Amino acid sequence: MSSRLPPVTLVLGGARSGKSAFAEKLVEPASSERLYLATGRAWDDEMRNRISSHQARRGQGWKTVEAPVKLAEALVANAGADRPVLVDCLTLWVTNLMLGEEDLDVAFDGLCAALPGLPAPVVFVSNEVGLGIVPDNAVARAFRDHAGRLHQKIAGLADEVYFVAAGLPLKMKG
Amino acid sequence: MSSRLPPVTLVLGGARSGKSAFAEKLVEPASSERLYLATGRAWDDEMRNRISSHQARRGQGWKTVEAPVKLAEALVANAGADRPVLVDCLTLWVTNLMLGEEDLDVAFDGLCAALPGLPAPVVFVSNEVGLGIVPDNAVARAFRDHAGRLHQKIAGLADEVYFVAAGLPLKMKG
Amino acid sequence: MSSRLPPVTLVLGGARSGKSAFAEKLVEPASSERLYLATGRAWDDEMRNRISSHQARRGQGWKTVEAPVKLAEALVANAGADRPVLVDCLTLWVTNLMLGEEDLDVAFDGLCAALPGLPAPVVFVSNEVGLGIVPDNAVARAFRDHAGRLHQKIAGLADEVYFVAAGLPLKMKG
Repeated sequence: MSSRLPPVTLVLGGARSGKSAFAEKLVEPASSERLYLATGRAWDDEMRNRISSHQARRGQGWKTVEAPVKLAEALVANAGADRPVLVDCLTLWVTNLMLGEEDLDVAFDGLCAALPGLPAPVVFVSNEVGLGIVPDNAVARAFRDHAGRLHQKIAGLADEVYFVAAGLPLKMKG
Repeated sequence: MSSRLPPVTLVLGGARSGKSAFAEKLVEPASSERLYLATGRAWDDEMRNRISSHQARRGQGWKTVEAPVKLAEALVANAGADRPVLVDCLTLWVTNLMLGEEDLDVAFDGLCAALPGLPAPVVFVSNEVGLGIVPDNAVARAFRDHAGRLHQKIAGLADEVYFVAAGLPLKMKG
Repeated sequence: MSSRLPPVTLVLGGARSGKSAFAEKLVEPASSERLYLATGRAWDDEMRNRISSHQARRGQGWKTVEAPVKLAEALVANAGADRPVLVDCLTLWVTNLMLGEEDLDVAFDGLCAALPGLPAPVVFVSNEVGLGIVPDNAVARAFRDHAGRLHQKIAGLADEVYFVAAGLPLKMKG
């Protein structure tokens, strides 16, 4: 049963804001079986540690699938009627799309198009990255533009949107 | 008619948060004629593209006036009774004041002093830039101090203040 | 009398968001005698100016104690029944702990353990620093991880949590 979750939820927050833990708590009561779509890749020790600590916290009942680039395809292939999905996180997906020189608009539109047909609720986690000083380098500026556009698209489709700071959720929509 | 807008509104948000589009939607129903006070200068291709995309979205009914430095003067000279004003954005104005080595306190006080006498409502858009790591360089630190002080002054005078993230407004005041 | 303040309050905000002034206004009506625990050190002119302007604004009735590293100890030693405490700010404390190569988890747990036994209410001010682009350097990334973890811990214990932007408080808890 996953009746407590609306079809699409977006959880935005800063670094170490508790956004992933909050999103997990949204998903866990919804079903005994959950799908974790991980966009992060363990490319260095810092990232490996971060992934391990997330895995340790999540505990049992989660099936993990890596989807660093083909996120829409992984959603469609793996979502099941009684298995709500947690996608963590959209900003790492944007990073991977940029590194892979993918067409970001095509990827964003593909993700948005896949959402209405999914048989299970999906919760997206993402970093808000646009509230600091304008970055010096153009790639970082492009990254935060892409992330901001994607957040607007997903928030527009989402039934519920939360902003998390210091572990506390603020409901922005729903 | 511009009866739906209060005298002064401040719309704060991050990069690509949808703050300008939200502010435009506040202003557009208020009158068939609107004034757009642009503080940005097209000094490179990135900025030129940004300005073009904003102009394309705004569509008809807007008169655009450039006010990179003399913002209070442009407000007083161009505001008309049936023409609400959108100022986009305060952070670029702060940048221009710093580049021009203007006295920022004098400029801020001049802007605040001009507001009560305006014949039309005005909506300010600005970037919140103080929620990242402390910048390495002193100019960036000074910039975010100036921007923060200006936001506090305008928010103190404003009837309504919104914080926009992922295209969603959160009312902070009003 | 300090009956108006709950035992623990956290005030989060960006640079120049007005968070310190807001926190002072929470504390000042609670008692004619107040304790100001300053974690900042006047190590350069910029910091000296910032400290002076904070001191000038606070005015009378405040006793200032410096607690750059031993914050829990200073709280326990100086808190009195009729003297509410303002700690400004946690992010500078984290900086000092890192510079002093202290064990941050031990320090965080020590602070949290000290809170329930205090005879007076305490208000913590801290900078939210996790909402910008991921910093290039590892120390800055570690800093924002530490700050984020501490904010979650204090927010979890706090009775009231505020997020301040442009001088305006948004209640996140309480």
